[in-house]
Amino acid sequence: MSLRVRIVGTGLIGTSLGIALSRRGHTVTLSDPSPTAVALARDLGAGALPDGSEDPELVVVAAPPDVAGTVVADELRRWPGAVVTDVASVKVAVLRDVEAAGGDTTRYAGSHPMAGRERSGAVAARGDLFDGRAWVVVPHPASSERAVALVTQVGVEAGGTVSVMSPEDHDAAVAVVSHVPQVAASLVASRLRSVSDSAAGLSGQGIRDVTRIAASDPQLWTQILAGNAPAVRRVLDDLRGELAEVIAALEHLEQGDGVGAREVLARVVAHGNTGHDRIPGKHGAAPTTYAVVTALVPDEPGELARLLHDVGDAGVNLEDLHLEHGLGQPFGLAEISVLPGVAERLAEELEARGWRLHG
Amino acid sequence: MSLRVRIVGTGLIGTSLGIALSRRGHTVTLSDPSPTAVALARDLGAGALPDGSEDPELVVVAAPPDVAGTVVADELRRWPGAVVTDVASVKVAVLRDVEAAGGDTTRYAGSHPMAGRERSGAVAARGDLFDGRAWVVVPHPASSERAVALVTQVGVEAGGTVSVMSPEDHDAAVAVVSHVPQVAASLVASRLRSVSDSAAGLSGQGIRDVTRIAASDPQLWTQILAGNAPAVRRVLDDLRGELAEVIAALEHLEQGDGVGAREVLARVVAHGNTGHDRIPGKHGAAPTTYAVVTALVPDEPGELARLLHDVGDAGVNLEDLHLEHGLGQPFGLAEISVLPGVAERLAEELEARGWRLHG
Repeated sequence: MSLRVRIVGTGLIGTSLGIALSRRGHTVTLSDPSPTAVALARDLGAGALPDGSEDPELVVVAAPPDVAGTVVADELRRWPGAVVTDVASVKVAVLRDVEAAGGDTTRYAGSHPMAGRERSGAVAARGDLFDGRAWVVVPHPASSERAVALVTQVGVEAGGTVSVMSPEDHDAAVAVVSHVPQVAASLVASRLRSVSDSAAGLSGQGIRDVTRIAASDPQLWTQILAGNAPAVRRVLDDLRGELAEVIAALEHLEQGDGVGAREVLARVVAHGNTGHDRIPGKHGAAPTTYAVVTALVPDEPGELARLLHDVGDAGVNLEDLHLEHGLGQPFGLAEISVLPGVAERLAEELEARGWRLHG
Repeated sequence: MSLRVRIVGTGLIGTSLGIALSRRGHTVTLSDPSPTAVALARDLGAGALPDGSEDPELVVVAAPPDVAGTVVADELRRWPGAVVTDVASVKVAVLRDVEAAGGDTTRYAGSHPMAGRERSGAVAARGDLFDGRAWVVVPHPASSERAVALVTQVGVEAGGTVSVMSPEDHDAAVAVVSHVPQVAASLVASRLRSVSDSAAGLSGQGIRDVTRIAASDPQLWTQILAGNAPAVRRVLDDLRGELAEVIAALEHLEQGDGVGAREVLARVVAHGNTGHDRIPGKHGAAPTTYAVVTALVPDEPGELARLLHDVGDAGVNLEDLHLEHGLGQPFGLAEISVLPGVAERLAEELEARGWRLHG
């Protein structure tokens, strides 16, 4: 069943959604404060410009978090028959803004497609941006069944993996799985500002992984953190409490008074083990532990391809792959994650094909 | 020039070093409190068992951080002509233990090969464990020139990328680039313990990267953190100060008093950007920013190989590769990092070969 969808805001998310929905045969109209941005989105196949006969069943507000609520309220008023959603990465604050503006909030249910924050703008848009990414539908208690159904449908049509959460549960969840990791990565990376080049030169894969997202955009993240301030603050408070225990334990050890201090350190690392195990594996809800086969790969075009060709030839499915760099060495280390039952066979096959395996 | 090296402690590091040095033609003898461990190391080609005629020029103590200093002091006494080093990942505490035990400390200079902490034991040993990894030589003011030269030589012969630092500089550096990231990863992962399955299910690549090392061994990390307590505590104190600013800013925003609060959040994320830029790129000291081309890869044996074969065929050198999983989807996203100048051509080549690229 073809939908009539109006998209307000033709940045990365709005334009990508327009492309995805247009490809699926839905009728999409586009709106943006910038005539250039909306024309670009149209040229990219995201939809048509309104011709005066617009009559949307669903309006998707793809505006920044700090204005999304106001725009949602405007659209609710403008289209009395339409369901309205937004795609902001915080949901309580947006709902509060919608409610504060008055109007028929039964026709509103929020969304959060968890995709594509590292680049921005229509120019980076792709119709497959949401493929396989989590798309959270976030109704509030007054949301109508029709609103929830339409917003769910658009997430599914866009290619997302849809789940449903309340605004409070959503914001608490993303505080833990997204916003606090961002703060932690920034705080760890921040410490590198004051070290010598030779100290920074000792950076290995650990700090590279921990700080990868520290390269994120300050302006966007200020909006996200400010928009989810209560939930992020609660999680950071917990983190600060455990950090204080670590610091106190280290102080006791410095003063030669280590009774109980090592137990604190071991407990914090063990808690990290337990929490890390909660992250779902690739193939569904249950965490999976993969075996890792590590091979040395010469730093030349085609060598990694040859390795992975050999992995495929061995009939082994690669579950994850991580390439680690040597310091100034002419090769990298390819860490090949596979199901534990096939690791030994894979290692034998690769060695038989002349690959040097590692640790 | 062939060296006579005695290795005390045949775990992962000691055995790997023995294999590497034996392959280079050096004469290695092995010692370990466990007869099984030392026999296994011998069988793996790490060296010979002592036959009574042992006369080492260099002794490498590969014992855990909390006993390394005592063992170094024992070996200095036992072999009055030999230089002695250790491989513990903390250096001030080991030196303090060596000095406290008395004896000729001019023949001691520390080492820290930064390799291979994720698995342990001789059974995981490989002769190429140190290839391309940082190997820090850590003399103290009384170390003789001969001691520094021999310890440097062994790092080079083992395949490491050798640099020299004082014990204090070393411990301050690894606190920032290794120990504090570990604590932060554990603290972030720890927060996942109390969330619902549906919240944990929203985990994306960000938190996966930030918490990867949270899976590390609590016992080993307790020793490392306790052994570097002063330096780790100083860095964590700084981090706690910046964290307190973030929490205060979020509290102000919660209370509707956001004056200056957003500036604090933006500054912390910007500081993270600056720190992240300090991490050296692959090909030397200067950080390199790569362009990323992302392709959808069907989750079937051989598909990733085909992609990378096509990358190689295009004559483009892959600088880094990261495979991201869809949630329950039959494909992954391969993020291909390349030099910025070739990204556009690569994208065209891949699309011409039928690959679906991704925002």
